Amino acid sequence: MRYLITVEYCGRNYCGWQRQINAISVQEVLEEKLAVLLRHKVVLHASGRTDSKVHALGQTAHFDTETVIPPQKLLCAVNSMLPDDIRIRDCRVVPDDFHAQYSAKRKTYLYKAYVDRISSPVKEGLYARIIPPLDVELMQKTAEKLIGEHDFRAFSSTGSTVKTTVRTVYRLQITRRGNEIEFEIEGNGFLYNMVRIIVGTLIFVGKGKIPPENVERMLQTGDRKAGGKTFAPEGLYLKSVFYPEIGLPEENCRKS
Amino acid sequence: MRYLITVEYCGRNYCGWQRQINAISVQEVLEEKLAVLLRHKVVLHASGRTDSKVHALGQTAHFDTETVIPPQKLLCAVNSMLPDDIRIRDCRVVPDDFHAQYSAKRKTYLYKAYVDRISSPVKEGLYARIIPPLDVELMQKTAEKLIGEHDFRAFSSTGSTVKTTVRTVYRLQITRRGNEIEFEIEGNGFLYNMVRIIVGTLIFVGKGKIPPENVERMLQTGDRKAGGKTFAPEGLYLKSVFYPEIGLPEENCRKS
Repeated sequence: MRYLITVEYCGRNYCGWQRQINAISVQEVLEEKLAVLLRHKVVLHASGRTDSKVHALGQTAHFDTETVIPPQKLLCAVNSMLPDDIRIRDCRVVPDDFHAQYSAKRKTYLYKAYVDRISSPVKEGLYARIIPPLDVELMQKTAEKLIGEHDFRAFSSTGSTVKTTVRTVYRLQITRRGNEIEFEIEGNGFLYNMVRIIVGTLIFVGKGKIPPENVERMLQTGDRKAGGKTFAPEGLYLKSVFYPEIGLPEENCRKS
Repeated sequence: MRYLITVEYCGRNYCGWQRQINAISVQEVLEEKLAVLLRHKVVLHASGRTDSKVHALGQTAHFDTETVIPPQKLLCAVNSMLPDDIRIRDCRVVPDDFHAQYSAKRKTYLYKAYVDRISSPVKEGLYARIIPPLDVELMQKTAEKLIGEHDFRAFSSTGSTVKTTVRTVYRLQITRRGNEIEFEIEGNGFLYNMVRIIVGTLIFVGKGKIPPENVERMLQTGDRKAGGKTFAPEGLYLKSVFYPEIGLPEENCRKS
């Protein structure tokens, strides 16, 4: 039987989702606890990787097991074994041909940032900091250019081997609340570091370090150098992965 | 000269504000860094203590020094030496008879909590968790009884030696946003554990563990046992200390 788990984690103490030889990953911790419970080796297939220090509110991963166990029981049992910074939020049986990565139709990322000259101790590791000044309105206007189907190769780190660099961004909202700024971006898929480069580029625009026209130029020419820095990992959250065929995530599917 | 510093800290890794022999306190870390900069022993007098794991957005403390240094320079120099979980947010020279504790006219505390069956990894240490169900409206109605001047001895932990247990609560707001609940409480002073017992008692009311009438009974009879548990320290923040005579905190004094 194939199970799908939805996982929340704080990425602070992990090298990211994926297993690595000399560092602890979220995947490794989860696979180990699942193996203890199910009494066999477990391999998790996630919707995608997350970088070191990046968080997830709704990462998803599937695995196969012959052990029969009610999903809610599995969730409670594994959560009781996990460290405080990882929790399974949902567990369900899915069809055998379901795949956490290939069945995903959309993904949403959230970037939490704040604008301040002094770093905030209580936001440490959970928000990225932007040094003022910042023209948020200009960023919001510029962000509109990125919505739709585009070749995003200028917004990806080199080294990724994908068939196509064309992706569709459905939504890119920038919300200001006091000195906090949230970026929420939804798309049918994301290239390696795409969210971090999009946000880093919009911040460079907001700080006047590059003209807003650079964003359109990047889409047209594929020139990564016209953009801003890959933004800090600390404020990035994989918020949710959408699988309309199985009704996940529950609340978001209800809305759309 | 007397200096007043306003400090933000994440209480996660500290035994609280006050120096202790076998654990690291915020006071100790700050005093040490100030001593390095000023080249003499520094003693900080805070607006009050905060418990282990409690955070501060605007704790205040004064100290005396003969070393002449511009406040903004002191702020930058000390911040560059401090660990990420402590930052000085404001530094200014105050009159010699100013006292961080005795000159304070009002204080505001913030309690961040969330209602969930599963604990949240990204909220760990920064929010307190409440297991559902919770009747927030009933809590809001009950909270009104606490506003005003009352004898709050039923809302304090034993062992405190104060002249009077009469305090005035100016404001006690409970705000719900999704599954997050914020308590904001402002008063002319707070007894030991008063905020944690008020919030713990209101949560017991919201969960139906005690009737709302117990709150009035506590004010009348001083019976601590009629209340709820002292609530978890993780979601508690000392938000600001008010000194109208010197115009601190800046934004709040401007408002009032």
